[in-house]
Amino acid sequence: MRLLDIAEQIGAQLQGDEAIELTGVAGFSNAAPQDLIFLEDSKFADAANASSAGACVVGQFDESVLNSIAARRPILIAKNPRLAFARAAEILRRADQPIEVIHPTAVVDPTAKLAPGVSVGPGVFIGPRVVLGPRVGIGPGCVLLSDVVLGEDTVLIARVTIYANTTVGQRCIIHAGAVLGSDGFGFVRDETGRYQKFPQIGSLVIGNDVEVGANTTIDRGALESTVIGNGVKVDNLVQIAHNVEVGDDVVIASQTGVSGSSVIERNCIVAGQVGIADHVRIEEGAILGAQCGVPSRKIIRGKGVVFWGTPARPIAEYLRELAALARLTRRKKPGE
Amino acid sequence: MRLLDIAEQIGAQLQGDEAIELTGVAGFSNAAPQDLIFLEDSKFADAANASSAGACVVGQFDESVLNSIAARRPILIAKNPRLAFARAAEILRRADQPIEVIHPTAVVDPTAKLAPGVSVGPGVFIGPRVVLGPRVGIGPGCVLLSDVVLGEDTVLIARVTIYANTTVGQRCIIHAGAVLGSDGFGFVRDETGRYQKFPQIGSLVIGNDVEVGANTTIDRGALESTVIGNGVKVDNLVQIAHNVEVGDDVVIASQTGVSGSSVIERNCIVAGQVGIADHVRIEEGAILGAQCGVPSRKIIRGKGVVFWGTPARPIAEYLRELAALARLTRRKKPGE
Amino acid sequence: MRLLDIAEQIGAQLQGDEAIELTGVAGFSNAAPQDLIFLEDSKFADAANASSAGACVVGQFDESVLNSIAARRPILIAKNPRLAFARAAEILRRADQPIEVIHPTAVVDPTAKLAPGVSVGPGVFIGPRVVLGPRVGIGPGCVLLSDVVLGEDTVLIARVTIYANTTVGQRCIIHAGAVLGSDGFGFVRDETGRYQKFPQIGSLVIGNDVEVGANTTIDRGALESTVIGNGVKVDNLVQIAHNVEVGDDVVIASQTGVSGSSVIERNCIVAGQVGIADHVRIEEGAILGAQCGVPSRKIIRGKGVVFWGTPARPIAEYLRELAALARLTRRKKPGE
Repeated sequence: MRLLDIAEQIGAQLQGDEAIELTGVAGFSNAAPQDLIFLEDSKFADAANASSAGACVVGQFDESVLNSIAARRPILIAKNPRLAFARAAEILRRADQPIEVIHPTAVVDPTAKLAPGVSVGPGVFIGPRVVLGPRVGIGPGCVLLSDVVLGEDTVLIARVTIYANTTVGQRCIIHAGAVLGSDGFGFVRDETGRYQKFPQIGSLVIGNDVEVGANTTIDRGALESTVIGNGVKVDNLVQIAHNVEVGDDVVIASQTGVSGSSVIERNCIVAGQVGIADHVRIEEGAILGAQCGVPSRKIIRGKGVVFWGTPARPIAEYLRELAALARLTRRKKPGE
Repeated sequence: MRLLDIAEQIGAQLQGDEAIELTGVAGFSNAAPQDLIFLEDSKFADAANASSAGACVVGQFDESVLNSIAARRPILIAKNPRLAFARAAEILRRADQPIEVIHPTAVVDPTAKLAPGVSVGPGVFIGPRVVLGPRVGIGPGCVLLSDVVLGEDTVLIARVTIYANTTVGQRCIIHAGAVLGSDGFGFVRDETGRYQKFPQIGSLVIGNDVEVGANTTIDRGALESTVIGNGVKVDNLVQIAHNVEVGDDVVIASQTGVSGSSVIERNCIVAGQVGIADHVRIEEGAILGAQCGVPSRKIIRGKGVVFWGTPARPIAEYLRELAALARLTRRKKPGE
Repeated sequence: MRLLDIAEQIGAQLQGDEAIELTGVAGFSNAAPQDLIFLEDSKFADAANASSAGACVVGQFDESVLNSIAARRPILIAKNPRLAFARAAEILRRADQPIEVIHPTAVVDPTAKLAPGVSVGPGVFIGPRVVLGPRVGIGPGCVLLSDVVLGEDTVLIARVTIYANTTVGQRCIIHAGAVLGSDGFGFVRDETGRYQKFPQIGSLVIGNDVEVGANTTIDRGALESTVIGNGVKVDNLVQIAHNVEVGDDVVIASQTGVSGSSVIERNCIVAGQVGIADHVRIEEGAILGAQCGVPSRKIIRGKGVVFWGTPARPIAEYLRELAALARLTRRKKPGE
């Protein structure tokens, strides 16, 4: 891809040879001449200069710094070089799509509908009435049960399982081992104390531009739907239970669990190993610190406020308690 | 399936047209005329009446309420409508079993024994001497290593892996990505500080009517067995280590971990993200609250008592401590 | 395998018939005449004597005890009988390797290089330029994307996914459902609050003699590498994020999560459900107790010291705080 085209698409100002061709991005040390690198802080300019990369995204540095870097290779000047680099990486990745192919070992139900540009890897199973949008990529070993719908440009890396009636939007990336639309954990106890499975026949609806990490599980609704908004990013080994609603642009880090019927409103940030019990509401923009726990039916409110501990409370409060506790044990020493 | 047959099997009293045919269950809003719905609380009778469902399970409401609902569609009157509905859902699900078929892409070892009614999906591998009971269903992409035994009517949804010598009982449901019978985590440190793998050659024995969630892992015993009782329900992403014993009708929620050689006696309820260390005994009927931690070799006793915190203690005690801690920090404010 | 050969390889002193042939190891109760058992504590000598095993590894017990056991079957006398038994188990396991075979349903890219003795199971996909060392075993349903390298004698049990450019050393065991080299969780927030994926194009390098548990996920580096040292043992459902470095002979128990760019130095022991935030350094030989949490950028120092709680602190300190807290609530009772 021509550097000029990349510059235009990421809105960066190009200085240097605009005709060079790039194929990917890299770090300083492992970049080849076809790779793009980025420099966020001008104090690492020497390290960038020592790279073999073909071009470099840079910040709006002093002109002397810019010139010293541009003397080595073309530069793309951007207000936020990390963001510009990330966008360039995505543009280059999309330009490098696998060619359309249905691997001969894939089993595709005759009632499935595959749009142009779809690629299906070896050992894939695509069930009845599945609908795959343009340029969808299904990696090796994936299983799509009946009536699954995937929007255009969505990619399943490998060995993803999607249960019946699950809908995934456009431009999503689903990593290996993820399970989408599995049965929720719902039972009714009978007179003898045994658990009777409550039907888990709702659906799972995932928006656009969502990324789901490796071995993460997202359950379908019991009778209604589990809903994941647009732009949501979910890390590895996360559990999202039945009937949960996750708003747009929420980030959920690894090993966090969200119990049934809870709501995480838009723009929340949920750190790793957080536990959110059932029927909880995390209001817009709240930040849940790592390992914190939100008890059943609680409402967490506070845009930009960090919550910590179990039960989750504002971090300042939690730290005061920790300090008080530490003082308490100091007081107990003999002679004090 | 005829409504009268359903009514008889779930022990409900039928009022209305007993000849109508149903194929499934649904929620109020998405039910079709072939679906059954249920109404637990008569104050939602209007919502139930607005549904397109073919029949409705209801509680033992006032006769006027029953008549208003029965005016719209046949009703099944049950003491516990939620339980009756769940049972009807299971009956309808079993009536809708896939037809017997061994997919041509499945690899079935010639020494495996498949009972009548077994279905095997695409891309499945069934190893030497595996025994599958009547009507067992093996979904796409499952791997059963040698000498696995599955009891009648057990279903593996998709991409389940079962290690050698694992036995699973009747009517179990194993969800996608689950791994049953994996090696336990056992090592012996040698003179130089390196870890030598200790053999993990015991087995895993799972009872009847067990459900295992997506991407959950249950290890085999080291030399003896890991044992999961009848009616146990295990959620997604749970870890159960080697030599653990789980009693009948235990429920374990998502992301909980049970370490080696621990025992969870019958009727216990274990919430999400709980950590149970090794050689622990959770006595009959105890309830472990979310995220609590039980240290090594502890005994937890108290039928119906909720435990919380790390180390786990009765919830009343934990809450008193939290309150005392909060008071402590309040006292520290200037002027107090 | 002849008992004499086993004795020589594990460095044990043989007493009794050196010509008997063994095929495996077992526990007292389920051992067959071809099996080896072990006795660590002479007070269980009667139980060992009652076993059907063909031979027994024993400690350096009193001669009368040794003679009583040797009267029943040959014994292998070792300083550390548990370690000797574990070594014998591994020797017997390696002697029982599957024969070299590429299953006809496996899809192996023509540019992949398979050394002699490699076995590839059914439904496996091996991508372009993959390199498999001598005697590598790839179990059913595994997916190896492009440019993966596996060292000699490494075994993937089943349904393992390995992303492009991942390198795994020699004699490793990777359990079912594990995902190696998945994308890290890295995003750049743009002006509108949306998350742009930051490229995750580094690699994952795993050393020799590493064991990775079922459904564990280890991410590749963002631009550089994630590195797992030699002899590292990782349990089930563990998450290791991008750019993490794990030193030699580290043990990480189930459901622990290690966030981006953190370092765990050699010989550390990390218990289950531990959370290690980003840019943390766990210095050599430290021990992190179950469920503890290490906040971002912290350094944990103390060879052989156990840390507990969140934020993680030396266990003595944590226990003092727990005791102080308990006293505090006792003090609050009326009349005290």
